[in-house]
This record gives sequence, C-alpha cells and structure tokens, in this order.
Amino acid sequence: MQLFNNPSKQDWNGLLQRPYNDNTAVLQSVQSILSEVKQNGDAALRSLALKFDGAELKELQVSASEIEEAEVLLTTELKQAIQQAKENIFTFHSFQMHKPRSVETMQGIECWRKSVGIEKVGLYIPGGTAPLFSTILMLGIPASIAGCKEVVLCSPCNKEGKLHPAILFTANLVGIKKIFKVGGAQAIAAMAYGTESIPAVYKIFGPGNQYVTAAKQLIQVSGVAIDMPAGPSEVCVLADETANPAFIASDLLSQAEHGVDSQVLLVSTSEPMVQKVLQEVKKQLEQLPRKDLAQKALNNSKAIVVNTMDDAIEMVNEYAAEHLIVCCRDAEVIAEKISNAGSVFIGNYSPESVGDYASGTNHTLPTNAFARAYSGVSVDSFVKKITFQKLSKDGLKNIAQTVIEMAEAEGLKAHANAVRVRISEP
Amino acid sequence: MQLFNNPSKQDWNGLLQRPYNDNTAVLQSVQSILSEVKQNGDAALRSLALKFDGAELKELQVSASEIEEAEVLLTTELKQAIQQAKENIFTFHSFQMHKPRSVETMQGIECWRKSVGIEKVGLYIPGGTAPLFSTILMLGIPASIAGCKEVVLCSPCNKEGKLHPAILFTANLVGIKKIFKVGGAQAIAAMAYGTESIPAVYKIFGPGNQYVTAAKQLIQVSGVAIDMPAGPSEVCVLADETANPAFIASDLLSQAEHGVDSQVLLVSTSEPMVQKVLQEVKKQLEQLPRKDLAQKALNNSKAIVVNTMDDAIEMVNEYAAEHLIVCCRDAEVIAEKISNAGSVFIGNYSPESVGDYASGTNHTLPTNAFARAYSGVSVDSFVKKITFQKLSKDGLKNIAQTVIEMAEAEGLKAHANAVRVRISEP
Repeated sequence: MQLFNNPSKQDWNGLLQRPYNDNTAVLQSVQSILSEVKQNGDAALRSLALKFDGAELKELQVSASEIEEAEVLLTTELKQAIQQAKENIFTFHSFQMHKPRSVETMQGIECWRKSVGIEKVGLYIPGGTAPLFSTILMLGIPASIAGCKEVVLCSPCNKEGKLHPAILFTANLVGIKKIFKVGGAQAIAAMAYGTESIPAVYKIFGPGNQYVTAAKQLIQVSGVAIDMPAGPSEVCVLADETANPAFIASDLLSQAEHGVDSQVLLVSTSEPMVQKVLQEVKKQLEQLPRKDLAQKALNNSKAIVVNTMDDAIEMVNEYAAEHLIVCCRDAEVIAEKISNAGSVFIGNYSPESVGDYASGTNHTLPTNAFARAYSGVSVDSFVKKITFQKLSKDGLKNIAQTVIEMAEAEGLKAHANAVRVRISEP
Repeated sequence: MQLFNNPSKQDWNGLLQRPYNDNTAVLQSVQSILSEVKQNGDAALRSLALKFDGAELKELQVSASEIEEAEVLLTTELKQAIQQAKENIFTFHSFQMHKPRSVETMQGIECWRKSVGIEKVGLYIPGGTAPLFSTILMLGIPASIAGCKEVVLCSPCNKEGKLHPAILFTANLVGIKKIFKVGGAQAIAAMAYGTESIPAVYKIFGPGNQYVTAAKQLIQVSGVAIDMPAGPSEVCVLADETANPAFIASDLLSQAEHGVDSQVLLVSTSEPMVQKVLQEVKKQLEQLPRKDLAQKALNNSKAIVVNTMDDAIEMVNEYAAEHLIVCCRDAEVIAEKISNAGSVFIGNYSPESVGDYASGTNHTLPTNAFARAYSGVSVDSFVKKITFQKLSKDGLKNIAQTVIEMAEAEGLKAHANAVRVRISEP
C-alpha cells in the first residue's frame, strides 16, 4: 500500500480516482455475441457454451433431478449457514415493501402510490473461480418479497455441463424455478431478447466480468433495465487511533482477495495506526491462499493520513465507497455524517464480510463512486411504483381553474379542454 | 384513428408496438457536441447558443434581477395556479421520504437504511414551442424534499437571451438558485462534465427532444445517472359502455396535441362506445389551435375493441402505458388489477391533465413500455438509500459460523478471517 501524509485538498480528487478502464474493444466483441443470440437463440447459446465453457449441452435448463441431487452434495453446516443468512436477509428486506397510503391533496382529490413487482426479472450469477451462491440470496429474496412472477437465473456451467450444487441449492431455497446453464454476455443477451428456452425479462440483475458488464450496458441502451452500472469491488476503512490494527488489516485483505482490480483505501487521522495496520497486513497476507492476487490489489491501494476527523469524513464522502467501515471513537455519530456510500459498517465488530453474507443488508452495491447517485439493490429494485389518482366531480371543480390556467400558459389548449368538458357537464 | 375489432391474441404484440426510431445519426452528432463542451466549457456553450438559439450571451447564469422581473410579468391568476399546484405536489411527495427504521435481524445485529439526498442534481427544462414550467414543479419539489444540496437548472433561451418568466418564477418558487441559459445536448453535457459556470452534477432529470434524449443516453454510459429512458408521450384509455364519449375524446386529444409522435390508444369492450368517441374526436378536433399536429398523431393511433374486460385489462397491462385512464364500471376495482402503467387516472372526473399539472402525482413518467420495469419520478429518484449495520461483539459471535461457512465455500478465506480475528480476541 502507498502511504500519503496530509495531501493538500487540491490533490484529493486525483488521489481518490479509480483507475479508468477503456472497454471499447470489449463492447465491440460483446455486441457480436448479442447479435448472435438475438438471431440464433438456443443454438447460439449451445455453440457458445461449447466455445467458452467447454460444455456440450443438450438441455439448457437445469432439471428437477439435478436440483434434488444438489441438496445431498452439500454439508449440513453449509446448508444451515445458507438458511440462517436467508432468514436475516429476509427479515431486513421485508420492511422495504410499503403498503399504498392514500393522500387527499385537496378535497375530492385522492392520490396514492402502489408498489408492484416487476413481472419478469433475470438474475446473473457468475461461475468461474468461486460459486457466488450468496448473490442468489441477495437478489432472489427481494425479488420474492416484491412479488416478481417470473424469476430466471443464468449461470455458466463447468465442462461436465453442471452448475455448482451450492448454486442449485440456494436458488431452490429462494423459490427460483427457471435455472439455465448459460454464462457470460450470452446469458445477458438471452434474458434480454428471449430464446426458445429462456424467457425475455424486463430487468437484469447481478455481477459479472467485463463481458457481462458490457452486455448489461448495451442492453440497457436498448431499453431493458439493469440493476446498476458496475465496477471492481472496493472497501474504504475510516479509522482513528482507537481502532484495532489487526481487525482493519483483515478487512483490507478480505477486499483485496477479490481480485487484482479490487480497490482498497484506508483513511485515518493517526499515522501510528496506519503503520501498525500496514505491518498487520504483511503478517496476515502470508497466511492467505489467494495471497498473490491480494498482493497485486494492495500494490494499487492507498493509505491516507489527514489532520482532522472532519477532513477524513469529507474525504470518504468524496470517495463514495461501495463498502465503508467506520472504526472510530463515536463511530455511530460519524456514520450519521456519511452522505455517499453503498453500505456502512459501524464499529470494531462489523467487518464487511458480515454484510457480504448474512447480517441482512444487501451486498449488491454501487462501486466506482456511483454511490453518489445510486443505491444498493433492495426490494425497491424489483418493483415499479405506480401512482393513482381518483377525483370526484367536486374534486375536479376544486382543481379546475388551476389546471386550465397552467395548461393554457403552456399552450396546451386540449389539456384545458379535458377539464372544461367535464365541469361544464350539467 | 384506426379501429381494430377483436384482434386475435397473437396479433396483440404487433398492434401494441411503439414505432421504432433509429437514432444512430442523432447519437453521432450529439457525441461531437458532448466532446466540444467537455473540452471548451463555457466558450462552447456560448458558441452553441449563438448557433442553435440565435442568442449572443455574456452571462450564462440568470441574474437575480431577471428573476425579480419575471414575477411582475405573470398574471396573478397564473401565479396562484402555480402556487396551488406546488402545494398539492408537495403534499403528495412529502409522504415519500421515509425515516430510517432499525431492524435487529439477530440478537446484537442492528441494520437500517437511510435516505440521503443526492448532493448535486441537474434539471433540464425544454423551451421551444411551450415553456414547460410545470416540469420544474415535478422535479424541483421532490429534489427539495429529498434534501439535494445543489440543484442546477438548464433551459434554452430565446433570441434575446431570455428565459420565459413562468420558468424563472417557478424555479424561484421551488428554491432553485442556479439557473442557466443553456439548451439541448450541450446543457446535458455541461451538467455532466461541469464548465467554468455550471457545476457538474451526479444525476440529470428532465424531458427533451431527440438530441437531449441521446445526450442523456450517452452520459449515462459514462457513469452519470439519469431519471429514466425517454420516448414520446402516450395515453391509453380503457373504457366500457358506461364511459362518457366526450370526456374520452378530450383525453385522447389532450395527448395528441403534444406532437406528431404522441401515442394514443383506446381499448374498449364496447364498439358503440368506440364509434361515439371517434365522432366526438372529430368534433372537438376542429376547435383546437394545434389541430394539425393532433390530427397527425391521431392518424397513427388505434382503437381496439375486445370481448371481455379481462382481455382489456390484459391488453393494457401488456401495453404498459405512461398514462392509463380507466373509465369503466367499478373503475377502482379494475385499477387494482393494473400491473404495468406509469400513472393511473380513475373514473370519469380524473382526466390526464389533472396529473400533468396539479393533482399532486408526478408527471415525469416512463413511456415506451418502460413502465414494465421503471417507476415515474418521485422523491426516491432524488435520494440514495444507504444501508448501515452495527454488530456488538455478541452479535458477531451469533453470526460468525454462518459467515465463515459461506465465505469458505465461496473460496474467500480472508472474508472468513475478518470474522475469526475478531471473535478470537481475548
């Protein structure tokens, strides 16, 4: 990690920049995959599965017997853990669905807003080095609370044409029936356009590599909604001299092990604390299986010491981290001052990994400073909020002059007329 | 309007298609405007104002004295109408801001979610044929309820370098201080990248022509959030034999007068009703100043008769209209069955124009069937919802095994370690 001591404010912007990743080439190659799937449907998916996953697939959809098998292949401990995580995530998200509340804005004018689950949604779950079954909980549970009627899941299979049992078990646990062995950009294309086997959906969720990300960007332009723009995962730790260096080192490393492009930032008011953390990082790094990966991520990472806690708070708000861990005296008071972050972890006993798996909050969060304008996934992400209004004849009379004045001032005579024709009725 | 009598279900999809508009050429010309503004800032904006608006501008920002003058130029009646609309919109939107609610998902694990206003937002208000001051209410009021700190407004000026007084009066009424005389794609570029005069913002809202829409599409790919994808405005009326043909005709016309690309759809279970509506449309059309425009929009519009109310409901849900007017027996019961729409107008005395201006609901709504996945603008659109979690040491112990099991099954050892290092502390 590189250490910066009291950088001047004009240097903050440069220091806090994420590395720019030009994906023009990726977008082009992904565009041709999208076209291929749009044109050839299932046949394209089969040939791409052979090309990219090395799998010869007869059926794209996971069968009921494959799902049954999966349950047997997992340990009881893991199944219990997934069950417990499910319960906590359900508990937290169940408070995010709001009942309609009618408001009478004027006498005779009733307005309300109703959340309705998006009918068809698609979830993408990456395969590759690790089976990210936790993401199925994070997407499948709010989809189910929202009342989405059709939930489609795509994930790349291995050479034998199988999905990891933890993925199948978790999908089944949250009630997802339509699971397909399709990965990469071709999975996004399949869910956007539909194929013979895979239904087209209205919104696509989930993380993925640069091809998946590019595919989501492209289908969004064509009108299919996506959860949020994506970038490499990141953590920012805000620590004063009261923090525990070993705890902080473990948090920085748990982000760094995600991949070489992971972003890790430590902001502190105490240089001695930062020095202790750096030593701890070295020590703990030695014991990690993904040590080389983590080391590379750390080489690009920064520790910044600032003079005051106010400066530190300003800096982390400017950075707008996906995950922000606050290990400071009065951590909860400081957390109140956070205006830009995906999810905030307060105090010494709230490591990021609890939110990644099981505290109950969602782990699909805005990276790359998108937290300045975007929220993490929640039940909101799976519903549309439709507004309704019902006016009585008197209600319309109460508002008529207002509407007529405004419509005519905007030069929209027929808008005014729609009111006039009603109130002039005998 | 073209009349379709009981089309078979397999033809619905074709019938309900919006016209496809290839905007590749527009995207290219807009890209060069974006680059010009990014590179040359205010100088580019001045030269584009001269080119497109015919105005030679010294100052891009509207001055305090221009705002003062505006108030004098409006009639008392219009000012009262705007004030009344403001009150209703405020009343309805004020219930959309939720206080954080803490949930204890397990003993010692507290999670909550807090809405925080997006710090910097930009509003685009079209000029051109009509001054759309009503849109300032629809965007400025929720921005103010959300607590957005910096609200920037851009709108094109006339040849004399002036904005319409109703725009200035309304902006001032909702507390917007930074108003700029910049229109078109260049306004979107200015708010996305920032210039010497105009601050860069994190999210951009508002309607516009195809250049503005293309600019919003392009800056969204580069990471600036936008309100929603855009298309031509549209209304769908669902009517049975109890409806009032004159009322319905007035609603169809108030949509048609928006422009030649406006979409108007009438779905009914009663052919005699449809025939009466068509006659009324002809009659009312004659009296409209924007008659030619409306006539062109109507030429592309459809009236569809179906056999049953269930079919009618299925059809309007498939169409997913921006505005849906329900004029039927038991209109409220039918409205309950609507799953795809931007805003719903219930009964004979709820014309679309009340929602366009003053009932209290928002008029910035998803067009082009985007209502299947998108909501209209609300206070939600101006906030990020940040999640928080705070675990006690016992809380962490309660969840430790769950997190460790799941992290290790995903191959993320350092994630497990961040928990282990904390619970193994003496």
